[in-house]
Amino acid sequence: MLLYDSAVSGNCYKVRLLFAQLGLDYTRQEVDVVDRSGRDELLGELNPALRVPTLVLDDGRPLAESNAILWYFAEDTPYLPEDAYERAQVLQWLSFEQYSHEPNIAVARFWVSFAGGPPSPKALEGRQRGGYAALDAMEGHLATRSFVVAERYTIADIALYAYTHVADEGGFDLEPYPAIREWLGRVALQPGHVAIED
Amino acid sequence: MLLYDSAVSGNCYKVRLLFAQLGLDYTRQEVDVVDRSGRDELLGELNPALRVPTLVLDDGRPLAESNAILWYFAEDTPYLPEDAYERAQVLQWLSFEQYSHEPNIAVARFWVSFAGGPPSPKALEGRQRGGYAALDAMEGHLATRSFVVAERYTIADIALYAYTHVADEGGFDLEPYPAIREWLGRVALQPGHVAIED
Repeated sequence: MLLYDSAVSGNCYKVRLLFAQLGLDYTRQEVDVVDRSGRDELLGELNPALRVPTLVLDDGRPLAESNAILWYFAEDTPYLPEDAYERAQVLQWLSFEQYSHEPNIAVARFWVSFAGGPPSPKALEGRQRGGYAALDAMEGHLATRSFVVAERYTIADIALYAYTHVADEGGFDLEPYPAIREWLGRVALQPGHVAIED
Repeated sequence: MLLYDSAVSGNCYKVRLLFAQLGLDYTRQEVDVVDRSGRDELLGELNPALRVPTLVLDDGRPLAESNAILWYFAEDTPYLPEDAYERAQVLQWLSFEQYSHEPNIAVARFWVSFAGGPPSPKALEGRQRGGYAALDAMEGHLATRSFVVAERYTIADIALYAYTHVADEGGFDLEPYPAIREWLGRVALQPGHVAIED
């Protein structure tokens, strides 16, 4: 399989982490996430959204969006529950991550650590306010749980771990979030775990 | 079942449309999407993200995020394919809708039609630029297809229809998008279709 990848992207790291834990082989092709020129030529036929991760399966068929890739490969493995309600809860948290968490925490991190700064201080303030609201929601949820769904490690943990564990690179302080910090430690101890920089 | 709902929200409409087509009974409780005070008291125990739609199942268990609710109820119905790759494609487009489409088109519509105007002209320009990029991606995809995935009507069509068919309320002009307009017509002709205002 060929993964159009970015070494610094949490969305790509989600896929790399699951693939490592499943023992799947694949080739990585690095795509620039700052200079987006040439994306249409590179990804246009594979992913109308022109984003990474974009995966080409062994048979040549493309699949895009980190959560769709996670779901496809986690099916029938311990990383996705069988129970219909637990599966729906996994999807609820994957959706939360993409809508309420990533656009704030990942974008703030991109501006602060990779793009030379935010477009304006006010823009960064808005993303940090939204990011802390997402962290508040996670903290309340994890205060009484070991993992995000079903008291076991699933792709919901992988999806939320990706940008939460590097939130400091977006200027976020996790000190006031003890439940999140303990959960980050539990996730990092899972068999087959790899780091974002691996 | 009890649906915490908003009559004008496309995210809530997705759920109402699928429920109508599946013939499912439920009670609607309207939640104000402009005045968000009291959300924590109303939804805090049910949905950490404090958003609508939030659903309470017959047995009292909560489920949130429109795409998770669609997936849960479409499973084992004609609205979600059985093939693993087609299911992943459905999830790819659900993710695209929540990440690249809704935050632009739905937010522009909210500002223009429900919230008394955007925070700034520049903010609206940004959302419209992003919204047109999402429409461009849809147009290219639908130019050679009858429906979003698997050449049949699925929850991927429901999710993308919700805000695309009212994009004009956010200032978007669909005239340059003939494939989208024909697809909107096909979706509206599906058995059991209901309008957002129903």
